[in-house]
This record gives sequence, structure tokens and C-alpha cells, in this order.
Amino acid sequence: MTEILGNLDELNREVAASDFDAIVAMSPENVPYTSGVLLWTQRTIRDRLALVVWPRDGDPTFIVATNEEGYVREKSWIGDIRGYVQHRESPIDVLADVLRERGLGAGRVGIEPSYLSADFHAELLSAMPEAQFAPCESLFERARMVKTPAEVELLTRAAVATERALMSTYSTAQPGDTERSLVNRLGAHILQAGADLPAFLYLTVGPNTGHAHPDPTDYVAREGDLLKTDCGGYFAGYYSDIGRTAVLGRATPEQRSVYSRLAEVHRETIESMRPGVPASHVFDVAARGYERVNIPFKGLAFAGHGVGLYIHEAPMLSADEHTELRPNMVFSVETRVRWPGREGYHIEDVVVIREDGPEWVTTFMPTSELMVI
Amino acid sequence: MTEILGNLDELNREVAASDFDAIVAMSPENVPYTSGVLLWTQRTIRDRLALVVWPRDGDPTFIVATNEEGYVREKSWIGDIRGYVQHRESPIDVLADVLRERGLGAGRVGIEPSYLSADFHAELLSAMPEAQFAPCESLFERARMVKTPAEVELLTRAAVATERALMSTYSTAQPGDTERSLVNRLGAHILQAGADLPAFLYLTVGPNTGHAHPDPTDYVAREGDLLKTDCGGYFAGYYSDIGRTAVLGRATPEQRSVYSRLAEVHRETIESMRPGVPASHVFDVAARGYERVNIPFKGLAFAGHGVGLYIHEAPMLSADEHTELRPNMVFSVETRVRWPGREGYHIEDVVVIREDGPEWVTTFMPTSELMVI
Repeated sequence: MTEILGNLDELNREVAASDFDAIVAMSPENVPYTSGVLLWTQRTIRDRLALVVWPRDGDPTFIVATNEEGYVREKSWIGDIRGYVQHRESPIDVLADVLRERGLGAGRVGIEPSYLSADFHAELLSAMPEAQFAPCESLFERARMVKTPAEVELLTRAAVATERALMSTYSTAQPGDTERSLVNRLGAHILQAGADLPAFLYLTVGPNTGHAHPDPTDYVAREGDLLKTDCGGYFAGYYSDIGRTAVLGRATPEQRSVYSRLAEVHRETIESMRPGVPASHVFDVAARGYERVNIPFKGLAFAGHGVGLYIHEAPMLSADEHTELRPNMVFSVETRVRWPGREGYHIEDVVVIREDGPEWVTTFMPTSELMVI
Repeated sequence: MTEILGNLDELNREVAASDFDAIVAMSPENVPYTSGVLLWTQRTIRDRLALVVWPRDGDPTFIVATNEEGYVREKSWIGDIRGYVQHRESPIDVLADVLRERGLGAGRVGIEPSYLSADFHAELLSAMPEAQFAPCESLFERARMVKTPAEVELLTRAAVATERALMSTYSTAQPGDTERSLVNRLGAHILQAGADLPAFLYLTVGPNTGHAHPDPTDYVAREGDLLKTDCGGYFAGYYSDIGRTAVLGRATPEQRSVYSRLAEVHRETIESMRPGVPASHVFDVAARGYERVNIPFKGLAFAGHGVGLYIHEAPMLSADEHTELRPNMVFSVETRVRWPGREGYHIEDVVVIREDGPEWVTTFMPTSELMVI
């Protein structure tokens, strides 16, 4: 990533409307959002903190481990970059220095306590006893919630590429394939389709479809087995997240029935997603749909979620989330049921909210009836 | 993962020798270590907390989101499993209930503040004002540091598989390949080689080799370009982590010279890794080696790291880590140099500490001289 895809003007408006003197991006979504640089190690090496200090007035500062410093200097639009040697210097000390340099030793500073570890948090409080720290994640969430045209284009392309990769995998699936070999093919197809890395590959077969996120197994697919997938990749730091269920060779009337009822709920849920509709209303539509078609809904906390630099972005399509849908929000809508140890079904599509209603992005592989492979 | 690969007896000894009434596993490494179940969503959905309460006396309790509950009930050896509905119930409330049930409302409880978010941590302190919480990561680290034979076997197999996947990618690399296409092939090969998911694929070409962990680009490889890779996969929850540098078509004398000097330091570093040697001594051997062969070492915080359920496990091969090496520790030893924007070299091998010295596991692709592809 060498360009900013998200809307930083929106972030500046949020900061201007807040009482923060500065906010600090800390998470693997807000650091690339503010800096334009994707640091993969944020996702794998937890204590290699990267921080972007974003003041109300003036230019930002980017704090990174020296391992990443050369890359960041080349790629980021941010000019003020401070490196620290991991295991010898603390990023929190550098952060405290930067804030004090800006006269914010006793300032009001927004941080991400839902991401920052309790250890780093305690270190920060002790390094800057006069400062007032408060959470600012909701401010980032609001700024990132409505996507820019460039983000919509990327998220759409990522979703379609992932759907094609899945369709390519299902197209050649047959009895005798192991679950693991299907997972491997899916991962290879997602890479071929343009992902930088597969993010998750939950492809299950037969009785394993009863689980949500299991490890791949050596189970051998047989005629009549369900194939269920929930998968995604990283595309320039953004997630794809889609799902499909199919059956090998032949479907039972019961399988067709469960699937069709679920697909009906799925379609109704998506059709309810218009600008001005609260997220909680979409959840209610889904909940009532499950109830009407007599499919268990208990334990499902949401009907879908925003998708972007994080896998579950605001707004969640959940009972308590009353944010209204707006044009250029992008969602993964997931409708699913699982009977552990027996079978499960999962349909997940990417939907862009447009002025005149939902745009169902992933329509290459049909969802209205259970696909027989 | 349906079996325990790590040494839980060692964990029990650590708990018995501590003053904790119970410890709580929280991180994506300690939850599978204690429960035998790999929860992929721990790595992607940060607020979907999974917790294993491990008391000094009595049986453990596993707290998971209902999305994962059916799977966990089927796969874990732990009998007492408590589900919570995410976004409606808090895992911290369930944790507080479980601890109080055990009479530990005012007990001394070990937690993982280097992993737990500041938010969850504050919630925990407020839910259990009488309890005494203290960090217990070092206890887990010590218990996991020396691997069991099953872990050594898995880590060895994972490293060799990843090395073969990389060799397969390099074997067919040629001028005209884009960096992105090489990354895609490497990812597909790592999956074919048996990984559940690629974990990271830092394959860079030409001037991009000057960076450590960049995004893949559309750079087109040319004769004379360096190819540098630092890559790994997840194998049943455990990491592989290896690296190699090669050159396309022809090498300059300067490239050969830098590489050979680096390879010399790499070999010396590995040869120093015998039981009883402090980790810091290995770092010193590497540091002195870089200095002697006149390759910049500044900014490199470690010469390698333990590898297992986490990518950087204890002991780190760093200046301040004085833990002595012991048989059945497993390390990724990495020797590297980078000139950002120009070029870089990286050699990384998996080494098992044996009674009689280091066993260099990844020897399929030669490292002593710069490989010309």
C-alpha cells in the first residue's frame, strides 16, 4: 500500500469535533488507515508496536521498530518517522517523548485500549502521569465506516476474486478429495486471484460442516456430503469475507429444504439494507426470518458486519447497534446454521449500500438453491 | 488439533512452584497449549476472547464464544466448557463467575497482560476488586520453552516442508516473473506442503530485498536480481519460519562476497548453540561475527528466536536474555542485512538443540554460497 485509500478528511473532522488534543492509531487497521503503510508484522508479532500520533493541529508522527523503518520511510506519506530498536527501547517511551515535544505532556490524548495490551497501557500511564488518556476507537470507526470510492472498488474486487476462487475450488471437488486438499486448493486459488495472503480458509466437508472455524482434517469427501466454506484473503490490507454451501453429487430433500429456507432469510436480510435503516433493524429482519422458517437462531450474535481493514468493522449488524446504514458502507452478510457433529450451512455475501438500496456484489455463484457439484 | 502436543506436566510444576491459586490462559498460543484446541478466530477476531482457567488444584474450565462452543466440546479434553454469546455477554463476567465458583473471589490469579487488552483488563479488575491479578506469561513461556518430542517432530516437519516449498518456488523463478506471482506460487507451495494456512510470505525481488516485511508488488524480476524470502506457515497451530536468498542468472562479486560473509556469521552463530550456553552468548557470537566480516548490525535486536505456537517464543537470542539453551529447544536463527531501496540478504534456519549440540534441520537448500537460479 503506497496510497491512502480511506477518508482522512473524515478523520480530521472527527478529531476537530472531539475534545482530543491528539489521537494515537495503534491497531493493524488504524495504522495503515492513517499512514498508508501496511505493516504485516502488526498482525503476527504482537509486541512490535507501530503507532501514528495524529494531532488536532499539525503533522502526524509515525513510530515503528527499526526493522520496519526503511520500508516506512520509503512508503509512507508521513514525514516524521521515529524508529526504536525492539527489545532494547520501548515504543511507549518514544510515544511519550513525541507527545511531550508537542506540548501534550498534560494533554488529552485518544488511544485504543481495545487493542493496546494492558502492559503497554500501564507503561503509558506511568510514563505520562499528567496526561489524560481516553478511548478513541469509536472516532476511528466512524471515520472508516463509510468507504471511499477507492475502498469500495478494492473491497468489491477482493470479494469477487474470492468468490471466483471458491467457485473454482468447488467446480473441481469430487468424492475422494480430502478436506485438507480442498483447503489447500482454495488457498492457492485465493492467492492466484490476487490476494496478498489468505486470511482464513474454513472449508469443511460432511459432518465437519457442523463447526464454524475448525482445523482442516483428513476427512475424505463422499457423495452426498455437504461442502461449506467461509473464507477470505488480504487484499492490500483489506479483507474479503464470503461463504457458500454446496453438496457433492446429490442432495436429500431435507438438505434442499434447509438450504432454501436459509437462502430466503439471507435474501430478505440483504433486501432490508437501505440507507437510513438502523443496523439493528437488519438484525431483526434476519432474526424474524430464521424464526419464521424454523431454523435455530440462538447464539448467533449478528447477521453480518462491516468489512474493510478489519474483519468485523462497525457497524455490526447486531441487536444493539442502532447506527443507520449509509451509502458506501460495505458489509459481509452471513446467514448460517450449524448442528455440531452433523451438518451446517453458511451463505455469506458482500453487499455495498447504494443510494437506492443494497448492491449484492458476489453473485457469480448462485445462492438461491443448494448447488449440486 | 485434537491432542495435546506440549508438556502440561511442566505447566503444573510451574503453577505448583508459584504462589498462584489459578492461572488463566488468554493468548492464541496458551489457549491451544492448555486446551488442545486451535481457535483460528483468536488470531483474526480480537474481541472474541477464549480463556482457559487453570487452577492450582482441580480441573480446568474453558470459556469460549458460542460460535466456537460445539467445536470445542467435540475437540477439547477439557470437560467444563462455558459458552458466551458475543456482543451480548462478556467473557470477563463468565471468567469472574468461574473464579468465584472456585472460591477465588479474593484469590491470587495469573493473567496475560501482555496479550489482554487494556479494556478487558480494566473490566476484570472492576468485576473482581478483591482478587489479586499478576502476570503469568513467564510461567507459560518456561513451560513451553523446551519442546516435547511430538512438538520437535511437528516443528521439524513444518520447517522442512516450508523449505521445500521455497526451493520449489526458487527452482522455477525466472526473469519476467513478477514479485506478486512468486509470492502467490510460494503460498500455494506452502499449502501443498501441508500447512493449514500460510502465515507470512515476505518474498522480495531486486531493490525490494532492502525491506524486511513489505507488501508484494508488481516489480518484474530481471537477470542479476536478488530474491530474498522470509516465510512461514501454520502447521496444526505451530509456526514454521525460514529464509533464503538467491540470485537470478548471475551474481556480482560484491553480491557473492556479502552473502558468503553473512553465511559465515550464520554458521558460527548456529555452531555456538549448545546446551548450557546462555541465549545472550549466541547473540554476542552473531554480533561479533557481523562486526568482524564488516556487515552492519545496528538496529538488529536479536539473532533468532524460539519458535512454536508463537512466532517469537522464549528464549529470544538477544543481548539481555540470559536463559541457558537446553536440549529440545527449537529456534529460528536469522542472519540478515538490508540496505533499504537497494538490496538485502536473509538466511534463516530452524535449529533443534540436542544433547551434543545444534541440529541444523533445514539443509535441503544449500546456504554456504549464494545460490544462482
